[in-house]
Amino acid sequence: MNSEPARPIRPIAIIGGTGPAGMGLALRWARAGETIIIGSRDEQRAQLAASALQRKVGKQANVSGLENGAASSAADILILTVPFEGQATLLKQLKSSITPGSVLIDATVPLASAVGGRASRPLGVWQGSAAQQAAELVPKGVSVVAAFHNLSADLLNGDDPLDCDVIVCSDDGDAGQLACELAAKIPGVRALDGGRLENARIVESVTALLIGMNIRHKGHAGIRITGLPPASYR
Amino acid sequence: MNSEPARPIRPIAIIGGTGPAGMGLALRWARAGETIIIGSRDEQRAQLAASALQRKVGKQANVSGLENGAASSAADILILTVPFEGQATLLKQLKSSITPGSVLIDATVPLASAVGGRASRPLGVWQGSAAQQAAELVPKGVSVVAAFHNLSADLLNGDDPLDCDVIVCSDDGDAGQLACELAAKIPGVRALDGGRLENARIVESVTALLIGMNIRHKGHAGIRITGLPPASYR
Repeated sequence: MNSEPARPIRPIAIIGGTGPAGMGLALRWARAGETIIIGSRDEQRAQLAASALQRKVGKQANVSGLENGAASSAADILILTVPFEGQATLLKQLKSSITPGSVLIDATVPLASAVGGRASRPLGVWQGSAAQQAAELVPKGVSVVAAFHNLSADLLNGDDPLDCDVIVCSDDGDAGQLACELAAKIPGVRALDGGRLENARIVESVTALLIGMNIRHKGHAGIRITGLPPASYR
Repeated sequence: MNSEPARPIRPIAIIGGTGPAGMGLALRWARAGETIIIGSRDEQRAQLAASALQRKVGKQANVSGLENGAASSAADILILTVPFEGQATLLKQLKSSITPGSVLIDATVPLASAVGGRASRPLGVWQGSAAQQAAELVPKGVSVVAAFHNLSADLLNGDDPLDCDVIVCSDDGDAGQLACELAAKIPGVRALDGGRLENARIVESVTALLIGMNIRHKGHAGIRITGLPPASYR
């Protein structure tokens, strides 16, 4: 035993984590002392991304890189940060790798850019939302949470606190609470219970609205919910 | 001529204006010096509401009450604040009363409560949104703007500044600008261009999300958009 603080024993696997959103979340959580596994289709790419993060955060960081399936098997907390066009195929591939009892936090936004349209327009998903599509595709016993849609990837990859709330939707209260705790580890972020998973369609579509504002105004739009008692935020 | 400041010559007609949202907007705009016509199915009810507002704001207020059709004919700026279940029928009735060249600002939110469901769930509207349904029903030459969905009626009817942005969606830039100017007259409100009218479906559905939060947390939720340059707000 030495005097180093204990590492959190629960790693967080960021599936499809080499894109800007995944890398930004990984950066913020690594800085907060979480153990991060970056997942990618290509193991080498995952390891390069992990090394880059390790250099950026410093030696206290605990970041590794694995192929997506291995990353999924190695963690009970999975964050899915892939473009919508890859979400269903990836989840089908990962089905045997995700451990029952895991929590899958889906940050996928169904944007029309997935089918050659504009990123400022949501796509209608028959299940209601990308998160509900995910819920249909994960193994039994895996809880799906929708969260982290409205955070600017550019700002996540920077050093300043964000100015944004994370609205968390889930049918599993404990899983939702876990996502709220992870959100609150990002400086400047407050987490808020957005109700059941069916509400993910609203939160996902807000991202399209924010992207339109970013295009018109050259910003990095986020949202804050006002008018709620302080205890509403987790 | 005397030394009184000139009254604005453009009256604002609030159609279906005796409900909490209509009365709250009327209160704030009357306080800002605008000329307000409260519209109701029942002329006497409109006049009672106007008298109540007049007493609340004081003698500088310029508020009158008319039956909805007469109110529509008397103004070029119309605000529609009715429950979704009454919107289409009312607009069909008003078709001959709305002057071409008018701006209709639609604040209708299609909530499942219109058909016996929960107010925390949006209804799907075939045209895309309540505002797009309105655009289908107004006479040719009338511009439709979607705005004011996310303001708490309770807070509008109080005395404190609000803490909420109004996201304005329209296919007519001048009409959108007018709605932005009206929004900015409400203390604490910033107005923001939300893009084309098709985006109203997102802004309308956010209201359902906020209502769910109000139910869970006993608040008066609103939203703020963060991360945009100051010039983005009108």
